[in-house]
Amino acid sequence: MSNLDKLVLNDESIDDLQLKGLKLIQKKDAFRFGVDAVLLSDFSRVKSKHRVIDLCSGTGIIPFLLMGKYNPEEVVALEIQNDMADMAERSVKLNSLEDKIKVYNRDLKDIDFLKSIGRFDVLTVNPPYKINNGGIVNPSDKLAIARHEVMCTLEDVIKAARTLLKDNGRMYMVHRPERLADIMVLMRKYKIEPKRVRMVHPNTKKAPNIVLIEGQRDGGSFLKWEESLYVYNDNGEYSDEINRIYGRSEV
Amino acid sequence: MSNLDKLVLNDESIDDLQLKGLKLIQKKDAFRFGVDAVLLSDFSRVKSKHRVIDLCSGTGIIPFLLMGKYNPEEVVALEIQNDMADMAERSVKLNSLEDKIKVYNRDLKDIDFLKSIGRFDVLTVNPPYKINNGGIVNPSDKLAIARHEVMCTLEDVIKAARTLLKDNGRMYMVHRPERLADIMVLMRKYKIEPKRVRMVHPNTKKAPNIVLIEGQRDGGSFLKWEESLYVYNDNGEYSDEINRIYGRSEV
Repeated sequence: MSNLDKLVLNDESIDDLQLKGLKLIQKKDAFRFGVDAVLLSDFSRVKSKHRVIDLCSGTGIIPFLLMGKYNPEEVVALEIQNDMADMAERSVKLNSLEDKIKVYNRDLKDIDFLKSIGRFDVLTVNPPYKINNGGIVNPSDKLAIARHEVMCTLEDVIKAARTLLKDNGRMYMVHRPERLADIMVLMRKYKIEPKRVRMVHPNTKKAPNIVLIEGQRDGGSFLKWEESLYVYNDNGEYSDEINRIYGRSEV
Repeated sequence: MSNLDKLVLNDESIDDLQLKGLKLIQKKDAFRFGVDAVLLSDFSRVKSKHRVIDLCSGTGIIPFLLMGKYNPEEVVALEIQNDMADMAERSVKLNSLEDKIKVYNRDLKDIDFLKSIGRFDVLTVNPPYKINNGGIVNPSDKLAIARHEVMCTLEDVIKAARTLLKDNGRMYMVHRPERLADIMVLMRKYKIEPKRVRMVHPNTKKAPNIVLIEGQRDGGSFLKWEESLYVYNDNGEYSDEINRIYGRSEV
């Protein structure tokens, strides 16, 4: 327990990911992972031989979910905020995954750094959703940085993906439907072809509020549109598919 | 009846559009209008003061539906195939709408011609869906021309829209989801901003197979994603909304 004491700070909790015993250190009050990370890890296609990188990685939730689901050879987590990267690093130690998950506290706009860490089969990213219109957010506000394009724009993310992916490597992103024109235009600009889209709706009566998109570096152009995912069924209960994704058995 | 005889050929039928008594001349065996035209006319926002143009107009189904639903000041129908434009022209006479619907048997790639007919508040188009990969279709096959990009590409259509729309005018297109990256990239290229998207699915379990998209000439960037439209409900019957769109009362 003394070892655990060093790994977890007073304002943090250790949360059980309900996946192969994996645990994640999170702040008690902020930056707690949500449905986006879970849906993205389900949408991503990762094989055991893959080298994977997760951008805007935060507390490292996506690397841990990918490791638990697919056991890839290696996952690199890139996170610009010091304290978030530090939490991710401590979660790696807590799970004794130092030889499988590597955390870099670096800026994805640092292209020279990106080139120094080699190329990847798969890239995942849950980027800030909101355009920074200026004046709205305080750059020292960590939550704002996670949600708004303060430290990086959508274009920075896709440009980094171009640099990091191997030929024909795939990127998987979770975002908001209202940014889909921006996403597709920027993917084409950086020659990452949109290949697969899945919309997530609260239920069948509502518009989608989350989009999952797969792009392939230098891929041929054919876009597959998948069945929508509905979080709740008509009775207001979690849908069977959400239960499957979360690994719940009470379906 | 002798007047009617001149208007309708032996291999044609007169079909009641179930909308304010409007009738449409169609070939008995081919080019019959489908759900795409009905959904597009429902998705389009047309006011009585509007000047409207419909590209790739075929037999003129969309101009007649728009006239029946919204009674705009004028609808221009552009159609490159002689016999299709001729059928549309005869349908205009059949409905005594010569002062409201004007048919031009012209090529939408003829930019000088487009410039000669003035600019429009609203443009609608149900273009050929399929990329012409060469060798698949016979250029003399009229059905192939309606379905494949033989006579015009998606880029030709969007370029024509740029020329034909007034400032802030809106275009409404029905297409296939797998072309949505192409559509958004080309709209941005010609400064027609994607503003609204609606996906149409056969039912809640299936992927969308039709997309409806609204773009605005020089519009600001915000894309609204609407509730999906499901053609059939879970019982395999037409959904309430499809019945509303088709004007059926047995809901």
